[in-house]
Amino acid sequence: MVLYREHRFLIDCGEGTQRQILQSGLGFKRLTKILLTHSHLDHILGLGGLASTISRWETLETIEIYGGPATLSRVKDLLFKVVLRGGDKSALKIKFMPLSDGPIMGDDTFQLRAFPVTHRGPDCYGFVFEEKSRRPFLNDKAEALAVPIGPERRRLVAGEAITLADGRVIPPEAVLGPEIPGAKLVFVGDAGRTDNLVEVAHQADTLIIEATYLETDAEMARNFGHLTAAQAARLAVEAGVERLYLTHLSRRYRDQDVMQEARAIFPNTIVARDFDRIKVVKEK
Amino acid sequence: MVLYREHRFLIDCGEGTQRQILQSGLGFKRLTKILLTHSHLDHILGLGGLASTISRWETLETIEIYGGPATLSRVKDLLFKVVLRGGDKSALKIKFMPLSDGPIMGDDTFQLRAFPVTHRGPDCYGFVFEEKSRRPFLNDKAEALAVPIGPERRRLVAGEAITLADGRVIPPEAVLGPEIPGAKLVFVGDAGRTDNLVEVAHQADTLIIEATYLETDAEMARNFGHLTAAQAARLAVEAGVERLYLTHLSRRYRDQDVMQEARAIFPNTIVARDFDRIKVVKEK
Repeated sequence: MVLYREHRFLIDCGEGTQRQILQSGLGFKRLTKILLTHSHLDHILGLGGLASTISRWETLETIEIYGGPATLSRVKDLLFKVVLRGGDKSALKIKFMPLSDGPIMGDDTFQLRAFPVTHRGPDCYGFVFEEKSRRPFLNDKAEALAVPIGPERRRLVAGEAITLADGRVIPPEAVLGPEIPGAKLVFVGDAGRTDNLVEVAHQADTLIIEATYLETDAEMARNFGHLTAAQAARLAVEAGVERLYLTHLSRRYRDQDVMQEARAIFPNTIVARDFDRIKVVKEK
Repeated sequence: MVLYREHRFLIDCGEGTQRQILQSGLGFKRLTKILLTHSHLDHILGLGGLASTISRWETLETIEIYGGPATLSRVKDLLFKVVLRGGDKSALKIKFMPLSDGPIMGDDTFQLRAFPVTHRGPDCYGFVFEEKSRRPFLNDKAEALAVPIGPERRRLVAGEAITLADGRVIPPEAVLGPEIPGAKLVFVGDAGRTDNLVEVAHQADTLIIEATYLETDAEMARNFGHLTAAQAARLAVEAGVERLYLTHLSRRYRDQDVMQEARAIFPNTIVARDFDRIKVVKEK
């Protein structure tokens, strides 16, 4: 789950997600946006139970489920043909939001966008969460210039020059510090290649991506459209990211072996475990 | 999961069951029989992931899923409309076995039968696992009577009299000890009443049954077709069972409060927790 200010984004919803959400202590509150990377069962089956549980609380807001058309079609089968079984669709309060390459939502401070990913089957997407760069308001300088508290300061923050009562013109540069770039998180689900991800992952502060296999099983990775830990690490190097988190490991490996393969190429690699909490910050 | 000799019976398959099976160390081997109490989602949703996982191992035997017709219909929707999505049904190697009131399977040593349970919706069933009573073969007595090792002894065990080479007739009573009754396990899933369960639970060594609510919420229990801990305990008393295990507790209670309410009526009550292992033995 990605938390950003008042927003909560659940990315994918494999079997057992509702149990994990409860165990994590995050709960279902404000969980109104679910982003799906693709339609495979291990990424969507948990929506059955989650939707069923959530639908019992009448006060809950509408949930928006974002996914490629093929993904949403399978999710609708799960929700309407199994969970509801032809019952009243409005009981679920779910809005289906088809994804395409490009912006999904944003505000003054951040943007979320989807980008295509290559895996088995159509309509696979990854997600970029990117804070907008901002210039901090320098209180000391504003005080020194006797800028009153109130709408004048808001206009300066928004980048406008103001004219004070005594006739002085204060340009925003006078009270704004140097630009602070925002943090960038790139999330990739299952993926069969990385050459088409270098650009989108460029200088991400955190890249989260699958590493199902090790190089010894590179052929299997290729056959199933998955990555090896080394491939993920090479992407991190090429894209110049700060930190790499690996997920979706095959049960056949030990975490430390996956970590070792990746760290030999990209030292700042971590194998994500259930319930890990990480903070994505601008590192440079 | 109920383990008996070479058999393994998974009873119900809520979301996350495959993860729990792995974590329990039991694994999927010989998991060929799944008994479903009823069609509600929290008892069947795990079949999606389980079937999908299991179908990848080509060597696996066919899985038999037992449930009432309404339950099997919903499970088929999950497996064919979501998991397979119109693909080749034979890929799943699943046999659907409609339940009715009566025996399901058995052999020389045990019988498994289904019985109707009242809950919301049709086709709810509970299960009785019952070992047959047996008379132990008394080796000492057979030796003293010079009964040769081989088919003669087998016929005596089966309850037939035999005639030895020297003309003596040996009745089975001469070499068989007093009857040892078999253990009896009664499993009830969700249930809205207990009066129709007293007979089937009669003198069970172990009764496993839901206790979703406490008496303070008896009205809610009634409205949703569930039991209180006290109701379950009173059933245990009336049916003369040995041990009572409570399951399916609402998250709103603490285990100890549920235990306390039940033990005030039936002291030999235990609240079952994930991964508990219990042995069902003839107690008397």
